[in-house]
Amino acid sequence: MAETKPERVKTFSNVSISGGTHGNEMTGIHLVRRWMSNATARTEVERSSFKTHLLLSNPRAIEKCVRYIHVDLNRQFSHDPITPDKDKYEVQRACEIQKWIADNNVDYSIDLHNTTSNMGVTLILTSLAATTIGLQITASIKEAINFPVSILSLGFAFGKRDSGFTSLTKSGIGIEVGPLAHGTVKSEVFQRTAAVVSKTLDIIEAFNNGKEFQEREIELFECKKMVKYPCDENGNISAMIHPKLEEQDWKPLKKGDPMFMTFGGQTITYEEEEVIWPTFINEASYLEKEIAFAVTKKVKRHLGAVKRI
Amino acid sequence: MAETKPERVKTFSNVSISGGTHGNEMTGIHLVRRWMSNATARTEVERSSFKTHLLLSNPRAIEKCVRYIHVDLNRQFSHDPITPDKDKYEVQRACEIQKWIADNNVDYSIDLHNTTSNMGVTLILTSLAATTIGLQITASIKEAINFPVSILSLGFAFGKRDSGFTSLTKSGIGIEVGPLAHGTVKSEVFQRTAAVVSKTLDIIEAFNNGKEFQEREIELFECKKMVKYPCDENGNISAMIHPKLEEQDWKPLKKGDPMFMTFGGQTITYEEEEVIWPTFINEASYLEKEIAFAVTKKVKRHLGAVKRI
Repeated sequence: MAETKPERVKTFSNVSISGGTHGNEMTGIHLVRRWMSNATARTEVERSSFKTHLLLSNPRAIEKCVRYIHVDLNRQFSHDPITPDKDKYEVQRACEIQKWIADNNVDYSIDLHNTTSNMGVTLILTSLAATTIGLQITASIKEAINFPVSILSLGFAFGKRDSGFTSLTKSGIGIEVGPLAHGTVKSEVFQRTAAVVSKTLDIIEAFNNGKEFQEREIELFECKKMVKYPCDENGNISAMIHPKLEEQDWKPLKKGDPMFMTFGGQTITYEEEEVIWPTFINEASYLEKEIAFAVTKKVKRHLGAVKRI
Repeated sequence: MAETKPERVKTFSNVSISGGTHGNEMTGIHLVRRWMSNATARTEVERSSFKTHLLLSNPRAIEKCVRYIHVDLNRQFSHDPITPDKDKYEVQRACEIQKWIADNNVDYSIDLHNTTSNMGVTLILTSLAATTIGLQITASIKEAINFPVSILSLGFAFGKRDSGFTSLTKSGIGIEVGPLAHGTVKSEVFQRTAAVVSKTLDIIEAFNNGKEFQEREIELFECKKMVKYPCDENGNISAMIHPKLEEQDWKPLKKGDPMFMTFGGQTITYEEEEVIWPTFINEASYLEKEIAFAVTKKVKRHLGAVKRI
């Protein structure tokens, strides 16, 4: 087989790390606060080949320990200019953050999240971020970490355009760790998140310093759509995740497998032919949209080699 | 030993079951809604010797899926008349509920709660409810249930007077089930809560019908005080529950055992001589008061026999 030349990509000069994009997801909030307020701790996120920028994304939601004040901040971002809306705090905040990203020339963003789902550590890529370099960095993080890590490629399952934090930059990842009840912090989740951030920075540093990402095949989960809870005639949710599906994120669900249990105790099974890999099972903040879980497909993806310009 | 005569206690004529006293604790909300809206389901909570009354305690907080709107409703109740305060929705609601309890002659109340702590099923008694009959009913529930149940006697650890829902009635219990992230529901938690409610009603029914509670010794946990998180000079929490204490509700904590881990990774140990049994470890809603866990002591209590008048 003829060896193909590695794709040449620009180095990264400014990396942002943000917590509190959702104001009740505490790990990122406590980590970013610590790195902001403590010079010794700050060295944990500093590297020689790029500058690190720290951000608490949604200060008013953080203060109230709620996901958001008016609208979900993590659905307001865009690669294109954001249209201001003075009545919505998060839209205003999205505009300010977009400017902050531009002013600091941030070219890689790391956004820290927690989920109530039993997803472990998940590295999330929006559609714009799922480039070869984006996936190579992500695959290298997974490889370098000594606990299970899943890669989730969001595509457009959350809407018709990229709207997550990382869509503000040419490359970046969301680090989603669970299970963790919103408003709480757990040392294991805290330490694993810190370890993934540190490893991400190490990998960017190595790339900047000339390390080549080799051609390879990776396994990831592609998000296809959201599944809603069954509802009664009044639009109220009438069932729960079935005990056999509860906490089974990333595991295959096949035709005939239990999916929901009604409040009356009846089992509802999955009836499609196609095998799916549910995740974000029973995420608290998706309940307002009656979302029970996200449907993903486990796929293999070939990645070409990448090297700095 | 001479047999002592059983204490004679009035039967119960009206039992209330309330959910949503905290608007983001979903199990009680879904259970009460189901019993309210469905005649077949309602029979699950009906018995022949008393009337059952259903209540969603904090409708505005339920609608917003938050613990409370202005103040914690479950700290506003009292056995004495409650002083109205038009500016605080929950004080107004506490007055309305006190009137509802009086109008319906409710003499036993069951209030349904969830916790993010790994407490399993806990039957909670306020100080007024920890009478011989109150404890006899509670001990009988524990005995009748085929999964682990703990009994927690609150005393005045939460304040200088009883202020929980059950302080509105001469007898009653709080049913606290976890771990469950606020805003979510899990089938196992749902089914266990329903089973405990059903068993409570069976036991009251049997007592009303003449069954005598025998003299016995029971084991329970007495709540002594709350332990706060370590804070820095700015009053911000500077540590988390130590991984070795996380999820270890009801297990003894001895001098020298790890208790907290600072965000910087240092272990803080428990340094008192006295053995304690922590619970409500890492309960999300106590974080606003910087409460890390509740200190309890495991005690044995002698209960005299009780029979209906």
